[in-house]
Amino acid sequence: MKDRLTIVKVGGKIVEEPDTLAALLRDFASIDGFKLLVHGGGRSATKVAASLGVETKMIDGRRVTDAEMLRVVTMVYGGLVNKNIVAGLQGLGVDALGMTGADMNIIRSDRRPVKTVDYGFVGDVKEVNGEAIASLVRSGVVPVIAPLTHDGKGSLLNTNADTMAGETAKGLAEYFDVHLVFCFEKNGVLRDEKDDDSVIPEIDRASYAELKEQGIVSGGMIPKLDNAFDAIETGVSEVIITKASAIGNLALGTHLK
Amino acid sequence: MKDRLTIVKVGGKIVEEPDTLAALLRDFASIDGFKLLVHGGGRSATKVAASLGVETKMIDGRRVTDAEMLRVVTMVYGGLVNKNIVAGLQGLGVDALGMTGADMNIIRSDRRPVKTVDYGFVGDVKEVNGEAIASLVRSGVVPVIAPLTHDGKGSLLNTNADTMAGETAKGLAEYFDVHLVFCFEKNGVLRDEKDDDSVIPEIDRASYAELKEQGIVSGGMIPKLDNAFDAIETGVSEVIITKASAIGNLALGTHLK
Repeated sequence: MKDRLTIVKVGGKIVEEPDTLAALLRDFASIDGFKLLVHGGGRSATKVAASLGVETKMIDGRRVTDAEMLRVVTMVYGGLVNKNIVAGLQGLGVDALGMTGADMNIIRSDRRPVKTVDYGFVGDVKEVNGEAIASLVRSGVVPVIAPLTHDGKGSLLNTNADTMAGETAKGLAEYFDVHLVFCFEKNGVLRDEKDDDSVIPEIDRASYAELKEQGIVSGGMIPKLDNAFDAIETGVSEVIITKASAIGNLALGTHLK
Repeated sequence: MKDRLTIVKVGGKIVEEPDTLAALLRDFASIDGFKLLVHGGGRSATKVAASLGVETKMIDGRRVTDAEMLRVVTMVYGGLVNKNIVAGLQGLGVDALGMTGADMNIIRSDRRPVKTVDYGFVGDVKEVNGEAIASLVRSGVVPVIAPLTHDGKGSLLNTNADTMAGETAKGLAEYFDVHLVFCFEKNGVLRDEKDDDSVIPEIDRASYAELKEQGIVSGGMIPKLDNAFDAIETGVSEVIITKASAIGNLALGTHLK
């Protein structure tokens, strides 16, 4: 039987405020067994960019990353956000190691080709070095991964944190019983979006199709859940959607299987 | 017999300009055997701080680091400079891993006590986790260390890169035959400071005393060489002082033994 590995993806909002970050790190530290954290940092990047006079341009929710913006996200994701998480976890006795995809060549990407939009220095994940990450994890290290990858030719590339979490989970499914946790602003997938207590505890392929038909799952949730089921197809044991403040008790969220 | 480990310390100037950085990384990549890089980044920190409206205050050549400046150095040292070096080395086939002292708890420090000057979030190295670094190095990883440490209680601390290189060398002397290379602006320790060809090829304790008496070694060089001999006393095999552009041929510099 494979060992359990819990991969948690948290967005920028949680990790950028000292209070919510401290709570998140305590909850994350309390997760038993092997674990790994993938974080965002977009809000801080936008703020630092503005202070430096670098304009933030988003297309379809994705950041256009010219050379100046690449400098900003390298500073903010790889430095500010990542290293504060690492120091915070070390303070809690968790042997954290901050990484981008370039570090130990764990996640290589290709620069996104220009079709209608030129996103600039943005990478689409090409290859996850599951063996390198698995070996670190087994040695007791807890990787903390920033949303940056590299092209293997010397350049860093800005990469979507959700995608990195999903691809990392898939790349590690061969080595571990992987449970992938996406932290949302709500308690999980809700039957009634106005009722935060209406969490659907479990969704499988069949019930997912029904929920879509009934319009209960719609809009931006569809690509997220599609990706989750894609990860499950590739060997990830389950994907859990929950509130960041609930990662101490993963039973509470929505479990996709 | 212990395996050779070459530790190179490079200052900010070299790693902050794309041209000199590219040359340095090529030369560093060409060093045979186990290796490790420690870098600075002060000039970039000063520039980024100025762009963000954060004032740089130096006392006796050391940066006063208030909370705002700690954010800046965390971004610049831990993110911008470190991750560009890592991506560059990966592009050259070197399996680099960017780290601060917080990552894997490799270098812990104490916040410097306030005597006459309050340096703020500045750390004096307390403990180097030689075993953790040695294990990474033996696995084929090349650590790239930024001048930041942590207090083990959740806070990052700004730390002098020369000191980090020296302490890391001492902490690894038990595991490796350590050769510590400090990159200077000149070719080495010069007999005549106006003649860049007058490199003194080798200095030991006895000749060092003579060179000081003769005034050939003076001023800012004295604490640097004192630190070098202190490292040798603690088991480091030799300290080499050379020009960054010469790290491909370490025979050229000044060897302290």
